[in-house]
Formats: sequence, structure tokens, C-alpha cells
Amino acid sequence: MSQRILILGGGFAGLFAAREIKKRLGARADVELISAENYFVFQPLLPEVAAGSITAPHAVTPLRALLKGVFVRKARVHSVDFDRQVVTVFQGVQRRPTEVPYDHLVVALGQVVDLSRMPGLADHALTMKHLEDARHLRNHVIEKLEHAEITGLPEVKREALTFTVVGAGFSGVETVGELKELIDRSLKFYPNVSPDEVRVVVVEYADRVLGELPESLGRYAKKRLEDRGIEIMLGKGVASATGTRLTLTDGTEIPTRTIVATIGNAPSPVVREMGLEQQAGKIAVERNLLAKGHQNVWSLGDCALIPMKDGAEARDDFAPPTAQFAVREARCLAANMEAALDGKPLAPFAYKSQGALASLGARRGVAEVWGLKLSGFPAWLLWRAYYVGFLPGISTKIRVLMNWTMDALSARSVVQLKGAEPPATRYVHYSAGDRIYEAGNRADGVYSIVSGGVELRHTGENGREIVLRLGPGDHFGEGILAGEDRRRSTVRALEDTKVLMMEESAYLRMVDAFPVLQDYFDDHLQKVYGVEKRSA
Amino acid sequence: MSQRILILGGGFAGLFAAREIKKRLGARADVELISAENYFVFQPLLPEVAAGSITAPHAVTPLRALLKGVFVRKARVHSVDFDRQVVTVFQGVQRRPTEVPYDHLVVALGQVVDLSRMPGLADHALTMKHLEDARHLRNHVIEKLEHAEITGLPEVKREALTFTVVGAGFSGVETVGELKELIDRSLKFYPNVSPDEVRVVVVEYADRVLGELPESLGRYAKKRLEDRGIEIMLGKGVASATGTRLTLTDGTEIPTRTIVATIGNAPSPVVREMGLEQQAGKIAVERNLLAKGHQNVWSLGDCALIPMKDGAEARDDFAPPTAQFAVREARCLAANMEAALDGKPLAPFAYKSQGALASLGARRGVAEVWGLKLSGFPAWLLWRAYYVGFLPGISTKIRVLMNWTMDALSARSVVQLKGAEPPATRYVHYSAGDRIYEAGNRADGVYSIVSGGVELRHTGENGREIVLRLGPGDHFGEGILAGEDRRRSTVRALEDTKVLMMEESAYLRMVDAFPVLQDYFDDHLQKVYGVEKRSA
Repeated sequence: MSQRILILGGGFAGLFAAREIKKRLGARADVELISAENYFVFQPLLPEVAAGSITAPHAVTPLRALLKGVFVRKARVHSVDFDRQVVTVFQGVQRRPTEVPYDHLVVALGQVVDLSRMPGLADHALTMKHLEDARHLRNHVIEKLEHAEITGLPEVKREALTFTVVGAGFSGVETVGELKELIDRSLKFYPNVSPDEVRVVVVEYADRVLGELPESLGRYAKKRLEDRGIEIMLGKGVASATGTRLTLTDGTEIPTRTIVATIGNAPSPVVREMGLEQQAGKIAVERNLLAKGHQNVWSLGDCALIPMKDGAEARDDFAPPTAQFAVREARCLAANMEAALDGKPLAPFAYKSQGALASLGARRGVAEVWGLKLSGFPAWLLWRAYYVGFLPGISTKIRVLMNWTMDALSARSVVQLKGAEPPATRYVHYSAGDRIYEAGNRADGVYSIVSGGVELRHTGENGREIVLRLGPGDHFGEGILAGEDRRRSTVRALEDTKVLMMEESAYLRMVDAFPVLQDYFDDHLQKVYGVEKRSA
Repeated sequence: MSQRILILGGGFAGLFAAREIKKRLGARADVELISAENYFVFQPLLPEVAAGSITAPHAVTPLRALLKGVFVRKARVHSVDFDRQVVTVFQGVQRRPTEVPYDHLVVALGQVVDLSRMPGLADHALTMKHLEDARHLRNHVIEKLEHAEITGLPEVKREALTFTVVGAGFSGVETVGELKELIDRSLKFYPNVSPDEVRVVVVEYADRVLGELPESLGRYAKKRLEDRGIEIMLGKGVASATGTRLTLTDGTEIPTRTIVATIGNAPSPVVREMGLEQQAGKIAVERNLLAKGHQNVWSLGDCALIPMKDGAEARDDFAPPTAQFAVREARCLAANMEAALDGKPLAPFAYKSQGALASLGARRGVAEVWGLKLSGFPAWLLWRAYYVGFLPGISTKIRVLMNWTMDALSARSVVQLKGAEPPATRYVHYSAGDRIYEAGNRADGVYSIVSGGVELRHTGENGREIVLRLGPGDHFGEGILAGEDRRRSTVRALEDTKVLMMEESAYLRMVDAFPVLQDYFDDHLQKVYGVEKRSA
């Protein structure tokens, strides 16, 4: 009877596990892969998508095109029941749960970004994990250039033209390098922005960049980035963030409207709650890739902690979270699964890295391959060649190459597509002294104070100034309900303050739909603004 | 002294007005163009973007690249003060208003989509006006195919595989033709979907398609679309829409999860409130393109009603809203503006259409050029050649041609990128009998009834069934606050019902931030669920 093999996750690990298992087991197995997205994204290309040298749809490949013979289910994994051997998922927009049974389960769900330890960072930083993040970053950067071009306010211009990246590992360095190239190549369209007004900063907690590579290559990368005008701050972490400021652990304050966080990898909530043994925030597996304590649950890729020797303890004793390793792990896992079905002994995972590469943008890179160190243009060329070779699917390879060709031959487009809108109900952080809004501003929504405190100044019709101090649970900006479309008061944060901001349309709909809110605000507006009740 | 010429709008009319004025007036004028987007989108290509034959960023051109010597301001127009000769705008994310002065003002703000006359349509239909709409439609269609592939529920599969387009003018016909091609070419990736399960319908209120073209071409287009398996319903309008059904004026009900509305052009709110004389929902202008009653305010393009003869009354007496005319209007406007500055007499706008073309998808089209009628492949080829020739900017021409080449040579990608998320606080419409949710479903948010009524059934712990009838102002689904992640009750609409749906995270944040809601729901939960207060 054929075995039901279920793979959770469509990244490098999941994709290659599905392919290798199908290849080895053929008709002996019904292989199914569950992924939240219907495409495979090659993460090392995300900085190039962010910089616009590859357009987003051309950087990814539909999973269905890569997985002939494998059933692909686009769904969100909710939970796993190891006793009943079923995975519960939600499909599409459906709210009805679907149960998917398995004989063997492969967990390859990768990691998520968690920035919650640093106040304000989760609410104000951009990330670089998904394809959407890259698209969003590109549009965000163009938006800042557009704004800098036309604003008459020097401090707004300075904030708009300061771009910060947190973390100087592979992802941070490649992101900052591509970001700088995008800005440099776009400036010719913005005559009011002079190159010396642009500031690009990368912040790293360690005392060097590219910790994954030999020190000499890290030094080269640092010098190369600095030569291109990128500021590198080492030995500093993030203390907190607002919409206009990044504050570092040593007290440095950077006025900026762009923070890209490439740090904060954490286990996904599903993995955390799955009930598998965890170690260092990952799934603890045996050297043969079976999850500890299980005979039909396997794990690989970034979500698994894979020991490369018995009694592994140090960081180097475990497989690193790279595509190179994920692909080899997939091969080992498929072989072990076949052995398990045949009742043969399983082999431990073993692989020796062939090297590592990083692109620095502007046609420069660093590489260490088979012990050889390379830098500059040859390393960059090797980087591109290696990654195109690694890209699964011939049509995606061709598309990426055509994008690169077009990019080399023509100016980079400064089209700013609409990205994801910020949520209509969102948290916003302010530092002491920050202006939240001032009289005459467009009235955009209602604010409720979560923590901290603000001062509200209002000049009455008799010219007398009223000053109010508001704290947690208090709200302001509700004059929208009385038809106010410009602010009549000025509000400043008195201390570090977190507010919930609710945009006008969402707020008006809520008040309309919930009688308790309607009554409350009718009363409130009459008391504060002397406005008659809207409802009878 | 040089004149300040201010142009509002970056579509065909605004773009070409800016270029023609700059060309004519040179150093005599400071020309500025204000646009909400920083790119020019060629609307006739939107159906091809929706179908994936051109990727979104390649279908548009940055305004800055097309407008050398013109100051481009990306901003939202708020209002115009004709006495003070200033336009008030909001720039970027800024809430501070900015005033832009002018000597001559050109209004080229086009039209917006207004679907509010048909219940449910505005909340449930997709539109085809902006670049984002096209991207969104493509992702939506792929999502439906993904869902149809894996769902085990026949009625869900049927709804997912029924695609409807409202309106059979140029936009509707081109959209439905491309949509069908996208689906046909994608099906090979969805083995569980058979071609005869797919239903594509276009609904038109008139008794023929392509009313803009001669009747014989309309007949050809209709036959051609029908041969490709598209259903065409003529003489029917939309009565109402929900998330799973389109109801027509003759009572026909189409179970569908995809409604694309290409109807409902209306003046934009800014134009409506500007205080210029209006006629038939457009700005009334003289034959010389001056807004009636003004000497330095001009208008052209889709937002203007431009008489082509004195005493114009019938629809044919006015310039049609096409790109072809907008470009000629721009030329006339520039000449008249120069004449006005020189104190010379102004000339009336005059132009005779050279013809019209429509693409039907799958390499077929219809065209009438210089009185000659063409159909089939030659018309389609002419369509492509004409529009590429019309596209401003050489690099965009090249990009579009490369996209078409890639599309002709390789399979169409079924990558489903993330589109705009639905707003976290949104209206949802149900017909009598519709299930809103049922016990066991994922708890996704809280619902408040705006109009209509529902029945809630709940089986208590003692096995007794409780039935509640809820009406406007009542809410349900608030069990989320008590930690419920699966529904414990089943809710159905008793009549046509409109609810405000608030997603879980937005709702929880709101309750946390507004003490009045916290108190209310604490009380409510204790009464209904017997849950202890969460807050002290």
C-alpha cells in the first residue's frame, strides 16, 4: 500500500524534500506538500527585488511547476495531532478546518521574524523575509525620495533621506548594498535631492560584518561598503524605534523614516505549539533527521536543529541554516525515509560546506569557495552565476537573466507601486517631545493611549489656551465624529508613548455599527465639543 | 515673468498637456504636474496585466522619466481656491497641508469608479481602473483556482470556478477575453479542475457588446467570445451582490466568488467639490477647453465634457473619453494657452476619430480604422502594434515587447503574489439563507449587524439548543474575547443582511485600547458566556 508522505513548508527544505522523496519512492508514496504561498521564493534574491533589478513575479516560481507528481495544497497549517496522524489546515479564505492524514510527516516550516523584544521595532521596521517585504521596501524607498524631492521642511527631508539597516549578516549586507545602488541610480530623477543629503547606515551588534565569512573578507566588505558611502556602526544594538527615529543601545539617535530589520529569527507559532521537543528555538532532531522521540516525524531546514556529530553542543556542531545545507538535508532525509520503509538502518546527515558568497551591490562581492577567497567583480560574477544555477526551474532562470540584462542596459525605474497599506488599526510609538499632530493638520484618525502620556493644547474661540494631560485609556482626535477634517488642537508626547491609531473610515464604521460606542461618543462630544447628539 | 502652469492629474490628458505646454511655452512657463501616483499607467494594457502577460511594473512608466523640465509633485489634491489661485495638497504620508500657487490651472483628474447604487457591489466587486486592480484581479483568479483544486465541497468549487464580468464595453470585453485566456492557460497546473467546470460570464445592460464600435464588429466579438466558451448575458443589469452570489435585474442568480465591475464611472470627489460648473457628472468647458466662467482654469480628458460643436446636446456632440482624443485635446489646450498669454484669440477643439480597436484575447481582435473594418488575428496584431506605438517612453515599449515575447514562448506563471489584504474592518453582505459561519469554524472576527437580521443557534453543554434572533445594532462572534478560536454557534442570515466585520486582531486591539469597549464586553461576556471579567 502506498504511503502518505506529508511535507509542511515550501521553502528550499520542503521543496527539495518533496522532490527527492518523490524521486526515490515513486509510486510507493503519495507525496503532498502544504505551503502558505503557491510559489517558491529564492531568499538570496530578495535584496535584488527590493532594489528593482528583478521584478517580484520574475523572482519566484510556482510550486506546481516544480513539483510534478506531488499534490500541492495552498493552505495555512493550524496544528498537528501526532496520535491521530492528521494535520489540520485552513484552505484559502475558508474558515472550515480541513484534516489531512499522513503516514510520514516532514516539518520544514522555516523561521519567522520576531522583533518584539525592542520597543517600537515590530511596529516601525520593515523586514526582509518574504517576497512582499522586498516589494514593499522598494516602494517605501521611492516614496521617501518622492517626499524628499517636494517637502519644504528640512527635518522631514533629513528623516526621509536617512535609510537604516539593522544587522550586517548576509541579509543585512546584501540589503544595504542593493539599497544604496537603488538610491544612487534613482537620484537623477530627483533634482532637489543632492547625493550628500542621503545617509545610508547599517547597524550591527557584533564587532564585524558578515560573521559567516572569514575575517579578511568581512574587512574587505566593510571597506567596500564604506567606500560607497555607507556608514557602518559596529558593536551597537537597537534600543527602540519610532516612525521617525532609531535609537541604539549606546544612546545614538538616528532621525530616519526607514528601518529595515534583518535580525530576529524565531520559530513560527505553529512549530512552537506543535509539541515536538525544542532546543535553542528549533525542533530537536536526531542525526538521521527524525524528530526526537518520533519514528515518522522528520524535520529539516531552518526550523530544525541538526547535529553534525554526536554530543553536538557548540554552534558549529550543527548544520547552518543555508540553502546549500537544506538541499543536502533533503537528499539525506529521502534516503532515510526509504530505509525506514524498507526496515533498513538510517544514516546520519553529513555534509561539508563548499563555501559561501555575498553580493555587496554595484557589481562587487566576496566569496570563499573550497578554501579560496575571492573579492570584487569576480566574486560578484560568481555570486550571480552560482545563484542562477541554484534557482529551480528553467523559465525562472531565463526570467531572472532577462531582468538582469534589462537592468544593465536601461535606467532603473522609479515607479512606486502601491504596497500593502498600513493596517487601519495600528500601534504607533513616539518619543518624549515628538509631535503627534498639530492644529491645521489633516484629521486622519482617532488615537487611544496604550502607555505613556501626551499633552493636548487647544486654543478656544475666546483665544484662551486650554492644556490637557492625557494618559493610558484616554483618547484624542475623536473630533472627526463632529465633522472635523482639520485638527484644531496640537498633541505632543510627554514621555515615550504608545498609542493605538485607528484610521477615520474604520473608526466611523465602528462607531456606526456598535451602539455602545455611538452612545459613548455622543456623550463625549457633547461634553468636550458642545456638539449635539448625532443619533436620536 | 514666467507663468506658473499647474496641471492636476497624471493620466493621458495630464501627461500630454504638461508635455505640450512645456514644448510650446519653454522658458516662459514653470510647468508643474501633481499626481497621486508617480507613474503613468496605460489603461488599455490593464487587462493584459490582469491576465499576467505583462507584469505590473513593466506596464507603467515613471512620470519623472516622461516629463523632463516639468516639476512633478506626488501628492493628493485636496481642494482648489480659485480666488487666491492656490491648490491645497497633502504630500506623501504628511498630514500638514501644502499650498501650491498657479497662474493657469489645468484639471485632468479623470474619473473614479462608483458602484454604490447596487447593494453589495461596492463591497464585493473587483474593479479595473488602476494598476493595483489588475494585479489584484490576477492574484484573485489564481487564488480561486488554488482553492477549487483542493476543496472537498462541491458548492465552494462551483462558486470558485465561476467568474463574472459586469459591463461589455471596451474594458469589460478586453477583461473577460484576457481572463478566459489566463484561466485556460493555467488549468494544466490544476489537475483536479476540469475545463467544463469553469464558467466565465459577462453581463451587459445594453442589448449588444462593444457599443463603441459598429454593430457588425460587435456581433463578431460576441460570436468569437462565445466560441471560446464565454457566456454573454445581454439586456441585464446588476441587482445586488454578495461574497458568493451575483443577482441580476431579471432575477438570475449566479453563484460566484469573482465579480469584476467595469461600469460605474463617476466624477472624483475633488472635482465634484471644486465648485466648477458641472454637466452630466463632468466639468462643463467651452469649446476652447476653458472651464465655463473662468479665464485661467482649463480642463480636458475624461473629467471634462468637451463640446465638439456649438449647442452640443447629444452624446455624439461631445468628445469621447479615449486616449486618442485626450492627446489631441492636450495639443489644442497648449496652443490655446499660448494664445491666451499672447492675447490672441483661442481656437475651438476639433478632431475626427481615426477609428477604434479592441482585443478579445487569445490573439483575436476587432478594429475599425479610417472606416475600414478588421477582425480576427490581423485586428489583434494591429491592436498590439497601435498600443505599443502609443505607449510613451522607449524603455516601457521595450519592456512590454519583452514581456509579450516571454509570454508567447513560455507557460503563463500561476504565481499568486499577495495582493492588498481586505480591510480589517469591512462590510459584508449576505442574502437570506446564507450561512455566515457555523460551529467548528475558525473564529476570525466580530460581526455587528448594520441592516437585516440573523439567526444564531447554539447547543449548550446540556445538549439543549438555544436560538437567538439578532437585528441591527446587535453583534455576534465576540467569543474571541473569551479565548474562543473555533465557533461554538452557527449563524445564518434570515433576510438580506449587511454586517460590519472586524477582524480578530483589530478587534482585540480596539477593546484593549478603549476602556468603554472593555467594560461593555466584560459585562456582556459575563452575561452571555458566564466568563469572569478580564480586567480588574
